[in-house]
Amino acid sequence: MISPTKIQGIFTPNVVPFYDDHRINEGELRRYTNWLIEKGVTGLYPNGSTGEFIRISFEQRIRVVEIMADEARGRVPILAGAAEPNIDMVFQACKRYADLGCRAVSVTGPYYFKVSQHSIEHYFRELAAKSPIDILLYNIPQFSNEISLDVVKRLAMDCPRIVGIKDSSRDMPRFMDTLNEVKTQRPDFSCMIGCEEILLPVLLMGGDGGTIACSGVAPEAVMRLYNSFLSGDIAEAKRVQFKLLELIKTMFAAGNFPEGFREGVNLRGFHTGRGPQPMSPHEMEHFNAIRSKLACLLKECGFAEAADSCQTSSAKVDSMLERIRKRLP
Amino acid sequence: MISPTKIQGIFTPNVVPFYDDHRINEGELRRYTNWLIEKGVTGLYPNGSTGEFIRISFEQRIRVVEIMADEARGRVPILAGAAEPNIDMVFQACKRYADLGCRAVSVTGPYYFKVSQHSIEHYFRELAAKSPIDILLYNIPQFSNEISLDVVKRLAMDCPRIVGIKDSSRDMPRFMDTLNEVKTQRPDFSCMIGCEEILLPVLLMGGDGGTIACSGVAPEAVMRLYNSFLSGDIAEAKRVQFKLLELIKTMFAAGNFPEGFREGVNLRGFHTGRGPQPMSPHEMEHFNAIRSKLACLLKECGFAEAADSCQTSSAKVDSMLERIRKRLP
Amino acid sequence: MISPTKIQGIFTPNVVPFYDDHRINEGELRRYTNWLIEKGVTGLYPNGSTGEFIRISFEQRIRVVEIMADEARGRVPILAGAAEPNIDMVFQACKRYADLGCRAVSVTGPYYFKVSQHSIEHYFRELAAKSPIDILLYNIPQFSNEISLDVVKRLAMDCPRIVGIKDSSRDMPRFMDTLNEVKTQRPDFSCMIGCEEILLPVLLMGGDGGTIACSGVAPEAVMRLYNSFLSGDIAEAKRVQFKLLELIKTMFAAGNFPEGFREGVNLRGFHTGRGPQPMSPHEMEHFNAIRSKLACLLKECGFAEAADSCQTSSAKVDSMLERIRKRLP
Amino acid sequence: MISPTKIQGIFTPNVVPFYDDHRINEGELRRYTNWLIEKGVTGLYPNGSTGEFIRISFEQRIRVVEIMADEARGRVPILAGAAEPNIDMVFQACKRYADLGCRAVSVTGPYYFKVSQHSIEHYFRELAAKSPIDILLYNIPQFSNEISLDVVKRLAMDCPRIVGIKDSSRDMPRFMDTLNEVKTQRPDFSCMIGCEEILLPVLLMGGDGGTIACSGVAPEAVMRLYNSFLSGDIAEAKRVQFKLLELIKTMFAAGNFPEGFREGVNLRGFHTGRGPQPMSPHEMEHFNAIRSKLACLLKECGFAEAADSCQTSSAKVDSMLERIRKRLP
Repeated sequence: MISPTKIQGIFTPNVVPFYDDHRINEGELRRYTNWLIEKGVTGLYPNGSTGEFIRISFEQRIRVVEIMADEARGRVPILAGAAEPNIDMVFQACKRYADLGCRAVSVTGPYYFKVSQHSIEHYFRELAAKSPIDILLYNIPQFSNEISLDVVKRLAMDCPRIVGIKDSSRDMPRFMDTLNEVKTQRPDFSCMIGCEEILLPVLLMGGDGGTIACSGVAPEAVMRLYNSFLSGDIAEAKRVQFKLLELIKTMFAAGNFPEGFREGVNLRGFHTGRGPQPMSPHEMEHFNAIRSKLACLLKECGFAEAADSCQTSSAKVDSMLERIRKRLP
Repeated sequence: MISPTKIQGIFTPNVVPFYDDHRINEGELRRYTNWLIEKGVTGLYPNGSTGEFIRISFEQRIRVVEIMADEARGRVPILAGAAEPNIDMVFQACKRYADLGCRAVSVTGPYYFKVSQHSIEHYFRELAAKSPIDILLYNIPQFSNEISLDVVKRLAMDCPRIVGIKDSSRDMPRFMDTLNEVKTQRPDFSCMIGCEEILLPVLLMGGDGGTIACSGVAPEAVMRLYNSFLSGDIAEAKRVQFKLLELIKTMFAAGNFPEGFREGVNLRGFHTGRGPQPMSPHEMEHFNAIRSKLACLLKECGFAEAADSCQTSSAKVDSMLERIRKRLP
Repeated sequence: MISPTKIQGIFTPNVVPFYDDHRINEGELRRYTNWLIEKGVTGLYPNGSTGEFIRISFEQRIRVVEIMADEARGRVPILAGAAEPNIDMVFQACKRYADLGCRAVSVTGPYYFKVSQHSIEHYFRELAAKSPIDILLYNIPQFSNEISLDVVKRLAMDCPRIVGIKDSSRDMPRFMDTLNEVKTQRPDFSCMIGCEEILLPVLLMGGDGGTIACSGVAPEAVMRLYNSFLSGDIAEAKRVQFKLLELIKTMFAAGNFPEGFREGVNLRGFHTGRGPQPMSPHEMEHFNAIRSKLACLLKECGFAEAADSCQTSSAKVDSMLERIRKRLP
Repeated sequence: MISPTKIQGIFTPNVVPFYDDHRINEGELRRYTNWLIEKGVTGLYPNGSTGEFIRISFEQRIRVVEIMADEARGRVPILAGAAEPNIDMVFQACKRYADLGCRAVSVTGPYYFKVSQHSIEHYFRELAAKSPIDILLYNIPQFSNEISLDVVKRLAMDCPRIVGIKDSSRDMPRFMDTLNEVKTQRPDFSCMIGCEEILLPVLLMGGDGGTIACSGVAPEAVMRLYNSFLSGDIAEAKRVQFKLLELIKTMFAAGNFPEGFREGVNLRGFHTGRGPQPMSPHEMEHFNAIRSKLACLLKECGFAEAADSCQTSSAKVDSMLERIRKRLP
């Protein structure tokens, strides 16, 4: 089911649940997928950075989308990450995700090597020419080659297959320019933000939505922000946006990304195990203190299932964190 | 006249007019100061980065503020840049600016050398303890040592003399955290943005205003944005914010900063000469093409005085720029 | 055949030959492997950055080593890149490479995500504890997380399986500190440089050798440098090192890395096709001019097979490059 | 005395002694200058980064050179830092330093603002055209705009007044290219390194010497390295270079640069006070522990005057440092 619907709203980049032996926990992934849909997120976004696509195998990435598409059964659109190591593998992924009825794929600029903007533009033009499925540019210069705004502009003008951008650069001035220079020329071009702290400012300025990792932990809150915005209750949207900031910061502070987000999901009642990147014992100690703080924050948000893990006062946790932090480099 | 008024609204970081022999053109600085006040900007901000404080002498920096304070005669508050090379010179500047009736000084983190956050905090605590005038932290990590949010938080809690921050980091997520972690604890702490592209989003989220260089070129437009925001006409504020984006981009693209802003001021009818950093002949050629584009943009904004310099079609200028750009490294 | 020989001398990070349909050209890889051994390089280094390990599939990486080990038949040691996306896949690769008789594997810090030094240390400790084959740390902070010198020191002291470092950071002061702080404590720890421009300085200061991409293009020259150094003819080693600098620079300037090095191999008589990262038509034009320059440089080095492709004067090529460069962003 | 002598050997970038009230301690500066000359350093280098030129006033910078020139009385050449905030002030400084008989001035690329390579080239061409004294380019991209190698090449070919480069970029591959692309074309162009860790490799490859901050602390050792090199005793030069590495690292680790180097000078029997950048109490504690370690290292080098301050075992200091470090951010 390739739908012509514009990509907008809140897409959830999900973590992948693993067993202890590092196999994907398919049952839990299904349960989690279902829960996200029931909580009302606009769409699903497997194989994003939150999904640690880079740390699992090609076959696992395909499998993650198969499971989620099967479980979603067309109830919500799926944006599938397809940032494969070369263009042949991207096409292979695109074909499979099209067959599975995904709405679009998202593709980062090449990673590891530095590559010229000329090559990046050429790369996306080749993709756009042959892809059987719509493409969302995924700009995340922290981790992979930036896709410059000039390149985005030319691709948007020339390539119908490229239907939008998900910008995780944390660069709001650039996002403003994108709205001004691209969206005005091609209004159906989706401008999605991949930076949770500025979801509301982006919506207020005309952005189409976001891929928001904390919507995988507190979908109720993120959807309340988004729906308040839609209904014109900006004060409430603002209240929730600010309320989310500490939660976001806490999850980013817990070990290597995305372990804090993974733990947030666990505190909501799932068993996602540990991710592929191991933590040192020192980091685990720090992580456990953060976990308690995270539980308290989630409890404050009204998520009773997290209450049991909120065992210590916030001040105690902060001092514990302080002490542990000093032992980390 | 040290006023207890909160720092908010639009403060204009002005360029300094020079004669050909590099002396400050005092008459033109007076005329320009007066014009800015008449156009309705909230306050003046001499010795910011736009004022190229780093490229003139200590005596010249003092002189710039003396002239402007004398011309302003208390009509608008003055925020005076005092980022001097060492703490003794900062105090010397602070004392003089207090005597001149300035509202506050702004001070960057140390520049050139990398300095620890511990030292930066200590530095501002010493300043705050002894300064005869209120201090605004000036965060501009592109050019000088970042003042981390943790340091800002502690300074805001402990130092009444430090009354706010002007954040030019272009980092909206950080600005959101500043509002959430500092302003909630100390509501009178001014959170001013120093990034023109995101003035409106910042205002919508609760920021107090901005130090906005293009308010020195098109004060009518920036004040219309700000006043529309104040009166609740968000649609108009949005229209102006987006309208300003191309003007801002064009001025940033003209030679080394702040030559484009300087030229904008010239196109409004002033004679500010050239700044202390010389341009190569190649760059002058590029600059002249940009100048024409800038004139056309200002003409479109309704500033008739710029019309004469808008001599070529926008397409012609763009192609000229393209040709020249290719000859630049 | 796991040999206890210390890793030293010149290891060649080879490009991978492809057919037009992107399959690995096995015959050419065999012929090239054999040629390198006959030219006298100390060892082979498949799946380095030059081998574009990140752009091919896991199965292809394994296959590259299988082919080269089969062709080498123990004549030279093989250092096999095993920077797989997760620890399970690294072990899988290690096991296979051990079975194939490789001397050691090289492993980068994790790429894409930023990871703490604590995690990186923990990661290598886990690898070292379980690997069936010796490990060389591969430090390349341009592309993947840096392995800090403090971490290198602790790993060298505690983990016999970790037998050395290949440092591609281009950071000679760090390399000096590595020699001083690690090698003095564990003399059998191999300190290999992965920066061609400073091979001789590194050897003179006590380094063990290098993984030198231009030894895949001009093995005669690099081995002459190395052997002159060994025999005490520093003047000749210096002459060759400086002679190589322009060749190195030219290959780095040709398109995205490692296309220039690939073309160098082609000019020596091989058919390596194009790499997985496509070039734009503009870049191809630039590339072809560089190719001619490269041919002339190789001809000057006495490699007659490159002479035919050296068609224009160096001045002509430089002016052509200049003209083309201006059309590139 | 403007001498046509080539700039080579070891130039000492000196710290400036201050009284507690931040005035320059002229007597101690004279005594220190004299001591350096007696210890045999090739030349003096006031107003370098070690001299914290950026943190003192224009008048103080001029005064520092006046004192040192007066004390040196032509016994050694003086290279005077003249990185003033604008070109008029640079000329003013150049004129004064020429009058004082300095050998040359060193000038960094502009700092604070980012400036195009075109402007940097133009800036140095203007300087070269009008300067009454020879100029050494000072490349230190950590703190000020890089002077690209292409710009260096063109300046070296066109401007007789520009007689060399002092490269503090820590980038040995770039230094190799400078030797290969500039010095081969203009053999009298001085290539001086400003990175202490790689002095010997640079000399071995054909560099002319260095501006070496630790030659202000242990001139005996640095001159022994240099003189051993000159006399062909490379083994001894190597021994000293490696011996110096820990001293260098320790001084860099002590507070903000250049406090560790300042303390090294104090341990040799001078009273240089504290620099203009204040340290926090936490940092002072750390600093004092480092001081003891530094004293022990200097004692080991045979400098008896430091012995009294070497009060604790190295292991104790290391553990103390470790504990303190954990309390610093």
